[in-house]
This record gives sequence, structure tokens and C-alpha cells, in this order.
Amino acid sequence: MTLTGNMVIGQSGGPTTVINQSLVGAILAAREASAITGILGARHGIAGIMNEDFIDLTTQSHETLERLAATPAAGLGSVRLKPGKAECERVFEVFKKHNVRYFFYIGGNDSAETAHIIAEMAKAADYDFCTIHIPKTIDNDLKVTDHCPGFASAAKFVALAFMGDDRDNAALSGIKINVVMGRDAGFLTAASALARQDESDGPHLIYVPERTFDIARFQADVKAVVAKYGRCVVAVSEGITNAAGEPVMTTGERDSHGNLQLSGSGALGDFLAGKVKEAFAGESVRVRADTFGYLQRSFPGVVSSVDAEEARMVGQHAVQHAVANGEPGSVAIRRVSNAPYASECFITPLASVAREATQLKDAYINDAGNHVTQAWLDYLAPLVGELPQMGKLF
Amino acid sequence: MTLTGNMVIGQSGGPTTVINQSLVGAILAAREASAITGILGARHGIAGIMNEDFIDLTTQSHETLERLAATPAAGLGSVRLKPGKAECERVFEVFKKHNVRYFFYIGGNDSAETAHIIAEMAKAADYDFCTIHIPKTIDNDLKVTDHCPGFASAAKFVALAFMGDDRDNAALSGIKINVVMGRDAGFLTAASALARQDESDGPHLIYVPERTFDIARFQADVKAVVAKYGRCVVAVSEGITNAAGEPVMTTGERDSHGNLQLSGSGALGDFLAGKVKEAFAGESVRVRADTFGYLQRSFPGVVSSVDAEEARMVGQHAVQHAVANGEPGSVAIRRVSNAPYASECFITPLASVAREATQLKDAYINDAGNHVTQAWLDYLAPLVGELPQMGKLF
Repeated sequence: MTLTGNMVIGQSGGPTTVINQSLVGAILAAREASAITGILGARHGIAGIMNEDFIDLTTQSHETLERLAATPAAGLGSVRLKPGKAECERVFEVFKKHNVRYFFYIGGNDSAETAHIIAEMAKAADYDFCTIHIPKTIDNDLKVTDHCPGFASAAKFVALAFMGDDRDNAALSGIKINVVMGRDAGFLTAASALARQDESDGPHLIYVPERTFDIARFQADVKAVVAKYGRCVVAVSEGITNAAGEPVMTTGERDSHGNLQLSGSGALGDFLAGKVKEAFAGESVRVRADTFGYLQRSFPGVVSSVDAEEARMVGQHAVQHAVANGEPGSVAIRRVSNAPYASECFITPLASVAREATQLKDAYINDAGNHVTQAWLDYLAPLVGELPQMGKLF
Repeated sequence: MTLTGNMVIGQSGGPTTVINQSLVGAILAAREASAITGILGARHGIAGIMNEDFIDLTTQSHETLERLAATPAAGLGSVRLKPGKAECERVFEVFKKHNVRYFFYIGGNDSAETAHIIAEMAKAADYDFCTIHIPKTIDNDLKVTDHCPGFASAAKFVALAFMGDDRDNAALSGIKINVVMGRDAGFLTAASALARQDESDGPHLIYVPERTFDIARFQADVKAVVAKYGRCVVAVSEGITNAAGEPVMTTGERDSHGNLQLSGSGALGDFLAGKVKEAFAGESVRVRADTFGYLQRSFPGVVSSVDAEEARMVGQHAVQHAVANGEPGSVAIRRVSNAPYASECFITPLASVAREATQLKDAYINDAGNHVTQAWLDYLAPLVGELPQMGKLF
């Protein structure tokens, strides 16, 4: 039984450089589906639905859509809102009013949870309705899926950034600390390892939230690398925590999901730079810290082609599955082959990805807890694709 | 009279993404010049000369050199060292010992000064010798030349960064402050204006060191933009100063040129974000700050083709001039035509570029001192080249 009616699509959470690929993939698939009578884009996700702030997505030219697909950040506008019961009821009311039979929500695990709540409400009300969550996150922390659309492009940015910064550090020796996004998971920070093309290349040390961050240990690690190479490049996740499980540094501000603000501040980098200076007390060392910030999720032109294609594919698959099958779920990616790389989509229950998140596997982190393993590079490299080879004279 | 002997080439100061183009341009031109008997690369500039730490640059394959040319940061290693009289005497002693008749120094105004001192010493000692300064700086603050190799690529990075970040800010509204490199000159910060493709696009406010930064005025500016667009993207130079001429924020650390450390810290961004929160006291606003840091001068793959070609050209011209003419000087660029863009090299006396630096012309800054003018965009756009068009739904 195929549902006939309108569809609503929205985007939620932190943008990525390929989230609009998923939007365009879904729009183009919906235009092909006769069961979908109208395509409504919700401005700023759930907030737009509650306000009935919709854009008609049936009329844009292919040229407009393709330009949008290649543009970073959520073209419909995004939102950080974890709706409560009252908000979900309002959403559901709007859906009924507009004869919405399909809802596609592009986002991370919080968005999957929103989709799940709405799907459960529809079931309870016996309203024929299909909700699909379309995955997106630079954090790569969704369960079930092999990896998340948006991650590989952010990983490419981080790898390139470290590649250039390592050459900079080799030219003007010193200790350089780069703070990478990743609240609870070190996937993006670990991607910095792709920058290494020779044994002596940075990042020489990588710290992820999956391992307790010990300041004395960090200081000793840096001193050992400097003793060996005369310089040191460090990748550190913004979300590193101490033995008590508290963030090493935070501004204390929280977003509406209750998450502590870690980005948008140079505090952690400055703090760690200070600790390195302490460790080298009396010696003349050059220590600098950069915090990559939002560039990691929004810089145009640095997109992994695998990521762009898969982001398009998950959007398309969501619509095709909804129309053909009607069961709610979340789109996930299965890696079919690593060389040559190939992948396919499948649907997993909303409950299996809602709310909870994953972290880097133990097998991806070295025993010392200060770098990654070859298994991690094997997992990551095909997703990011080719990187430039740095030229060196010595 | 053509001098016959060895040449030394070195790189100095903060790296750029095209500084190795200049190095390779000079090497290839030197290989063609019969008067140049040997090509010595000094590791880490003046420091390498004093230590006789040279690399033979006569043997590398074209493939190695072309790969190097496309690699960010100084391939020979760089240095931040303003040599005193004793150091210059040592350099001169090494040059005599190795029969060095040509010295090419790639760097900014401090490097031009070093080259100038050495040229004067050679003249006083009646040693037949030619020193050429090859310009390089992302700051674009060298005198005489129309613009500096390295600047346009950094400008392209900044423009792209603002382009993506503005889409991010449009998706998740708030106030976003991005701190851009530029100690005394606002060229790079002003380049953020190239990101604007529509009236409502950011950066909505641009603050450069050429104008006194007044916190109350800044707060009022941000409030006015938020009232109009519901959001605000701000570009601010790391080197902004208050009415007393003091940096608004600094770590207090100085480099060996006596310059205060401004980069490698998120302090200014965090401080300004705090000031914005103060201005909106009581209201719920999302304020974030990023400090772009070293990525601006080292990110691989974001290179202006005009910049890459001109960086190659100035290196080549330096050698060709030295061999043909023998007079010391600094290579400068003259803009021959703006549409289509064309430029040529000429030689200016070392004294004309040594030490002193330039700033943004008054005609490039708007009357309110919080944005740029069309004249600035006309100057900048041909140097940076084509930028992607952002796709929008509304």
C-alpha cells in the first residue's frame, strides 16, 4: 500500500558541506514519485514545521538544485531544537492539516530521535505516515551505519589542514597544537593522521575523547617528539576529558540539547599551549595553537567525491524506500568493498540510531592512546579519496 | 660585466602557499644562466648561511621541483631572525668563502632589510656581489609593488572561508566573529568582502587595523546588523588597536623581530564574543568566534592561479635581472591591465621596501570604518580569480 500525499523535508543540527546533496537527492527522487503530491521544505527544521514556514520545492530548476547541492550548510536553514511532547504534537497537527504523509529529517542522532518520536505518535494515532531519518554529521558518530555523510569531507579538510600546517611547522620549527571538532568521538581528530606521508611528518600526537587526557603524560609525549624531530604537531579533540570525565576546557555555555559549548572558543588550545610552555620552562620554544572551528564543516570546495555521492544517495534512497515500503527508519551505509571502494544503502530502525552515539573503536587507537592505527587509516582513506603529495627537498 | 660564481637562495618569515613557486622559478632560471656556477639552498634562511647548512639545488628533477612548487610553506625551511652586524659579517664571510656572487632572499620587509644590509656591506668591502630580494607575504604590506606574492592565495582562502561560514550562519542564525591574520595592515581581513554575493551576505562588518577599534561602536554596529538581518558575520583583523594605539588583545609574547604575538591564540575572538554577549545582555543570542590561524598561509589546494604564476615570475625575474644587470634590488609587480588582468615585474631599490610597510589605502575603507569600498573589490578580484557561486533557496 503506497501512501499518497505531501512530503516535508527538513535539515537539523550542525551543517556539513554535503548536507544539501542529501536534500537535492531527496527532492529529485520525490519529483519522480507519483505518490508524492507536493514537496514542502521546512525552514529551520522542526521550528519551521511548527510555524508552517514552508518552501515549495517542486519548481526549482535543476541548475538551481545542483548549485545548491554543491553549497555548504543547510540550504533550508537548520535548527538546534530537541522538541518536547507539546512541540511534537504541534508538528503532528501541522502534518495532518497539510496532508503530509512523508517526513524526511536530515540530521544526526538528535534528529533521529525527533523523527522516532513523531513516527511513534503517528502510529499511536493510527495516522498513515512514514518518517525517514537521513544521516548527516561531521562527527561520524551514528550507530549502525559504516560512516556518516558529511564526515569524509570534514575529514578531508582536517587532513589537508594538517598537511599544510605540518609543512609550515617544518619550515619554522616549534610545537603546534590544532584543536579539532568532536565532542564525544575522535573520528575527525583521528582523520588528521591522513596528513602523514613520511615517518617524520605530523601530526606526531593525536588525542581523542575516547582516552582519558592526562596533562603530565601529554607534556612528556610532546617532549619526546621534540627530542626526536626538533618539532611537534599535535591533533587534539575539543572534547578531551580528564580522569574525572570532565572536559579539559569549556566555556560552560550549553546548547538546547544540553551539550556544553566546546567550539567557537580558543580556550582549550591556549590552555594546552600554556601547559607545553610550562613543560619546557627555561628553554626557548615556539608554541602555537589553532582551533579549526566552523571551517571544518563549512569550507567550500574541499569535498570528498565519495562523500558527495553518498550524501546524494542517502537522500534519494530515503524517498525511494518510503514510497516503496512505507516503514519508518533511518538510512544507513554498508561498505561493500574497500578496493575499489563501493557502498550501498539500507534501512535501520529509527530506535537503533536515535539518541545514542558511537565512538572510535579500540582497534583504531594505538596502545599508548596518543595516535591511531593502520586499521583506522584503512577504514578512512577510501572515504576521503586522493590527497595531494607534498613536495620536499630534504 | 656579468658576475660569475655561486648563488645562495633562502626563504624567510611566515610561509605562504606559493613561496616555493618563487624558489623553483629562481632555481630553473639559475640553471639556465651560465654565469651561475652553483646553486646553494640555505636551510632556514640566514641561520643556514651562518652555519653553512646548504642544499645543492642543481640536481633535483623537474618533477621534484614542480611538486615542491605546489607545496605550501618554505621548502628550504624558514627563519625569523633579524641579523645584527655580527651576523651579517658572518654571512658575508661565508659568501666569500664559497665564492657566492648572487644572493636571493625570499621574504617580507624584514628580509628586504637583511638583503639591504648585506648588499651595503658588499659594496663597502668592494666585493662584486648582487643581492636580490624576492617579495613574499600574505600581509600584502610591501611598499612599491602593486601587491605581494602569497597574498592572493591567502585572500582566496579567507574569501572561501567566509563564503562557507556565512552559509553556516544563515542556516543557524547568530553572531559569528572571525579573526583574520594581519598585524598592522587589513589587506587579508578586507579580502573577506569577496565572499559577498548578495546584499544580505556576510561579512556584514569588517574591522581593520587602519582604523581605531572602539568597542562601544562595534557593539552598536553588530546590534544594527542583527536588527536588519537577524544575524551578523564579522571579519576582524588580529591587529586591531584601541584609541591609544594598543592591541585590543595580545598574549604579550614577542618574536625575534620584536613583534607581539597575535596569532596562535583565540583570545581576541573570545574577548569580542564576550563583548557582543554583553551588548545583548538579557537576550538569547548565539555568539561564536573562530580564529583562522595558520591555515590562512598554509592550506594546500586553495591557490590563486594568478598568485602562483606571479610567484614563479618574481623568482625567475630576480635571477634574470641579477645575471643581466648586477644591480641589487627588490622585485616588484606592476599591474599592466585589470581586465583582462596582466602584470609585469620591475626592480626597485632595496631601501625602498626594507623595513617599512604599507597599509590599506583610505579609498579602500568605507567612511564608517567598518567595511570596504568597491575600489577595494576592483583591486582584489582579479588577483584572487574565480570563486564558486553559492546556491540558495531563499
